[in-house]
Amino acid sequence: MADVSVSADGGFLTVAEGGRSARFHAIWLRDNAWDAQTRAPGNGQRLITLADIPKDTRIATAAVSGPSLRVTFAPEGKSVDYDRDWLFRHSYDRTQQSQPGWTAPGIETWDSGLMGNVPTGDFGDVSTSPLALRRWLADVARYGFGKLLNGPVEDGALMKVVDLFGFVRETNYGRHFEVRTTVNPSNLAYTGLGLQAHTDNPYRDPVPTVQVLYCLESSAAGGENMVVDGFRAAERLRQENPDWFDALTGHCARFEYAGEVGVVLRSRRPMIELAPDGELVAVRFNNRSAAAITDVPFERMETYYAAYRRLGEIIDDPAMEVTFRLSPGECFVVDNTRVLHARKGYSGTGTRWLQGCYADKDGLLSKLAALGAAEAAE
Amino acid sequence: MADVSVSADGGFLTVAEGGRSARFHAIWLRDNAWDAQTRAPGNGQRLITLADIPKDTRIATAAVSGPSLRVTFAPEGKSVDYDRDWLFRHSYDRTQQSQPGWTAPGIETWDSGLMGNVPTGDFGDVSTSPLALRRWLADVARYGFGKLLNGPVEDGALMKVVDLFGFVRETNYGRHFEVRTTVNPSNLAYTGLGLQAHTDNPYRDPVPTVQVLYCLESSAAGGENMVVDGFRAAERLRQENPDWFDALTGHCARFEYAGEVGVVLRSRRPMIELAPDGELVAVRFNNRSAAAITDVPFERMETYYAAYRRLGEIIDDPAMEVTFRLSPGECFVVDNTRVLHARKGYSGTGTRWLQGCYADKDGLLSKLAALGAAEAAE
Repeated sequence: MADVSVSADGGFLTVAEGGRSARFHAIWLRDNAWDAQTRAPGNGQRLITLADIPKDTRIATAAVSGPSLRVTFAPEGKSVDYDRDWLFRHSYDRTQQSQPGWTAPGIETWDSGLMGNVPTGDFGDVSTSPLALRRWLADVARYGFGKLLNGPVEDGALMKVVDLFGFVRETNYGRHFEVRTTVNPSNLAYTGLGLQAHTDNPYRDPVPTVQVLYCLESSAAGGENMVVDGFRAAERLRQENPDWFDALTGHCARFEYAGEVGVVLRSRRPMIELAPDGELVAVRFNNRSAAAITDVPFERMETYYAAYRRLGEIIDDPAMEVTFRLSPGECFVVDNTRVLHARKGYSGTGTRWLQGCYADKDGLLSKLAALGAAEAAE
Repeated sequence: MADVSVSADGGFLTVAEGGRSARFHAIWLRDNAWDAQTRAPGNGQRLITLADIPKDTRIATAAVSGPSLRVTFAPEGKSVDYDRDWLFRHSYDRTQQSQPGWTAPGIETWDSGLMGNVPTGDFGDVSTSPLALRRWLADVARYGFGKLLNGPVEDGALMKVVDLFGFVRETNYGRHFEVRTTVNPSNLAYTGLGLQAHTDNPYRDPVPTVQVLYCLESSAAGGENMVVDGFRAAERLRQENPDWFDALTGHCARFEYAGEVGVVLRSRRPMIELAPDGELVAVRFNNRSAAAITDVPFERMETYYAAYRRLGEIIDDPAMEVTFRLSPGECFVVDNTRVLHARKGYSGTGTRWLQGCYADKDGLLSKLAALGAAEAAE
């Protein structure tokens, strides 16, 4: 049994039902009306602006009607029906998250314990079954990475992976890039050196949010891939030393890459980025392209470096890493705003040939949401 | 005459020269060494990580030598030469910016006073002269938008504009999209309706950072383009009411677009985004795709809405807008993280055909920096 009451001045209402209770302001309700004059019926876009809603909007009456709540607004004299379930799902009358570094629902942070349970899909399955694709994308969203097995061993196959969920983000490295040993490399990625776990292109703003690394040849010794959950690393740093966590979230680092003619990429962003309400939204970590840090006050610089060092130690800790070897036709996808990847050094005998490319997470999450919505509608 | 002194524990040094003085920590100096063991000579990438630098690194000796400063580190016993000009340019021993909403050097905010002086380039010039291109890109970086005149009137000409500075960001709208009146539009942009000034695709995270709008036909009445500097709007809001500014910077808004089959794009980001040290880094404003705001505590929601309303009023204020009409072969480029664009309504008689696409600011700024570096080197 639902119950509704309106405040004396009509500024907000309180709706209670089945043990739940939430307050909603008049202006919020009016702005979120779904009638055909407020929202375009076909595409859901809002047809009006706040300027079209009277400043002194208040609730004249509110009444329960079936699964709806009918609200009449003054001075417009306009009545709007709201689905009460929708209202409760969008309640803001709750305790907001307060600990800096909280993660969104649906994010699960991990360490090397995930090793036996690496999120994995089958190329054929995800290419043909919307359900298999949704499950694999849900894993990528939850863990920040996922492997795909049994794909074609052919030049450019990685584009078929991107086609599953989105679009290539082209950069100065091309639509895709070749990762194998080259002479006079423009980037250390194109050598046999081991690389510390890192996020790619932190010198770009925005960074590429998704990366695909696809294996075409793999007979050299070494060259295993590793991934580390940057969100878990940030959480560990915060647990160990909140002041160090604050140092890395509270100041911008700088990154730079000018390794080819005509390219001078620079950024100024924190290594650990929080939303204004403290949500952990991104990690940037890359020793190769870290530039001189000039946005930390002199008095905080030693603390900043202690924090930076410790974050690197956590990232290098084998207890944090998930390692796997890619065989030809296998690839992995990482959320480059969260999961660091690395490569162990490899020898010059035999070959190791990967192709990599960037894509965007918005497309991936959109595809996932659309697949979920389609399933729910069946 | 330069002078250098080292602190008693070797933790930092102080260098003074020509009235300038700055302190640098041992660990900062060591991390920023440019010798061939620390940085790859060809591409400048750092070859070591912080773990390769002893935790107890300190300055053993420091001495001036010509334009350099020679520093010897203990316990490594390693000597490194630093260019003193480079050091002073990268000094962090200074008062850091403190007012929330400060803008980077090189950014100039504007209002309708810019109308007589719209940043404009000539398509032929910028396509053939690196100097003309650098000047035009510098204007785009400074003002957040720029027009180009006298371009070809042909399908896809906008790609030639993107080729000048970067790469297309492909999305569900394609590599480019057609902006003209359509029946049953998936997006209100494809109607004759006037649109309030907005940034594009705030429901994407990251948003496309650059947009190109290129005119191919323009005989309909109306349809003028407007731009508004979102950074100036944010500054005005802060001046008028710092608490309102804090409301919009301190809480996330939500945006959503689900206007086509298979697309459910959602984001959670503030309307006015600051770096952790208060730098104004982005504005997101779009009435059409604003979703229910659920990340503002009940107690702050009325203040939030008052701030949101006032920001919209500022954006709608004719004193803020620069208006122009695009003729066929003309286009404009906007920094979509800063400058809002709008369109006045237009009638169904005659035609109006624009093509639009997204690109990325990192490529644009890289091109600008590289052109500047090339010029300086001549």
